[in-house]
Amino acid sequence: MDDVVKRIREFRDERDWMQFHDPKNLAISIAIEAAELLEEFQWKTREEAQQHAKDNLEAIADEIADVAIYLIELADNVGIDVEEAIRSKLKKNAAKYPIEKARGRAVKYTKL
Amino acid sequence: MDDVVKRIREFRDERDWMQFHDPKNLAISIAIEAAELLEEFQWKTREEAQQHAKDNLEAIADEIADVAIYLIELADNVGIDVEEAIRSKLKKNAAKYPIEKARGRAVKYTKL
Amino acid sequence: MDDVVKRIREFRDERDWMQFHDPKNLAISIAIEAAELLEEFQWKTREEAQQHAKDNLEAIADEIADVAIYLIELADNVGIDVEEAIRSKLKKNAAKYPIEKARGRAVKYTKL
Amino acid sequence: MDDVVKRIREFRDERDWMQFHDPKNLAISIAIEAAELLEEFQWKTREEAQQHAKDNLEAIADEIADVAIYLIELADNVGIDVEEAIRSKLKKNAAKYPIEKARGRAVKYTKL
Repeated sequence: MDDVVKRIREFRDERDWMQFHDPKNLAISIAIEAAELLEEFQWKTREEAQQHAKDNLEAIADEIADVAIYLIELADNVGIDVEEAIRSKLKKNAAKYPIEKARGRAVKYTKL
Repeated sequence: MDDVVKRIREFRDERDWMQFHDPKNLAISIAIEAAELLEEFQWKTREEAQQHAKDNLEAIADEIADVAIYLIELADNVGIDVEEAIRSKLKKNAAKYPIEKARGRAVKYTKL
Repeated sequence: MDDVVKRIREFRDERDWMQFHDPKNLAISIAIEAAELLEEFQWKTREEAQQHAKDNLEAIADEIADVAIYLIELADNVGIDVEEAIRSKLKKNAAKYPIEKARGRAVKYTKL
Repeated sequence: MDDVVKRIREFRDERDWMQFHDPKNLAISIAIEAAELLEEFQWKTREEAQQHAKDNLEAIADEIADVAIYLIELADNVGIDVEEAIRSKLKKNAAKYPIEKARGRAVKYTKL
């Protein structure tokens, strides 16, 4: 992961793009790239979407990477370690959605 | 990173949530969480957004983690390694935005 | 529609919010509100989503209105008539997706 | 507005697309189109975004129309009148953001 963060920084700095990559602009770009990823599955049924992902792994990987790159950049810019943030959030989620109550229930996120 | 992927899988499987976490539903959730991250900076100027991020690191880290968790899950479900996807995409981006042409130009992404 | 545009302007100006409502900020807010609308259907099957909409008409109407208000404001700010824009776009779409080719096909939007 | 709703229905039904246009799929498409509208302003400063909108009115109008068409369709599918929904929501917003408290304050939406 450290290597990936380093490469992302290099890519940005070689192009002198830090001037555009403030937190607000990066958050905008994360949302735009997330919508492009979603567009891969637009109008498809659950099954068609699964098949589409299998048949277009490189395109899906590229879209996932586009979101991930800006996400890692935003975290790096404000001094957040993404892996540490994930571990910390998983602990909060575990407290919010106890196994015995959340098991097999899709309503989990809103009404538990 | 492997450890983080493993924890995300465990969190999902302990709750029997794989049934909801197909690629289309995960892509939807990534977009929703990306918008919540963007909401942190809504109506703020560039400078206010930067200050807000500094003053609310835990909230920002949580929102980044929410996007990252679903992104890693989607990648894992279809057999994509996120770090490898990022390295591969950075190479493509480097070819698409040559340093000498892209340096310091915000129009890069659309009209280069 | 004219009456609605007028009311939206009044609401904004009574609060002196024009200073925040530039095109970029409005486009951000449209995306955020669109994600909140989408959140109503998160994790639900097609059928559950349809039932949810029927059972929560006021909440759905409020979310639709939130998107619509910012959309109308953005249009109004730059001098675009939304109804005219829709009529014009439908004509372009009709040329892009001829009835005989597009009928009953979900691939329409990407690969026709 | 009635005429616009009628045209949108005709466009959809001539192509037999109602089968794809359930509420969840339409909400996804609204979010995708909202991100495309936002992309018009990506990386731009507030001033550059305003100028860009002025210089590209037809492109902006098309993107606004794309969001509006799916939004009107979703409302129509579940029996919601968009103009009525807007009027109703503006009344709620007026109660939530009283003029004397909200005037000139960007924090309005979150912490008032």
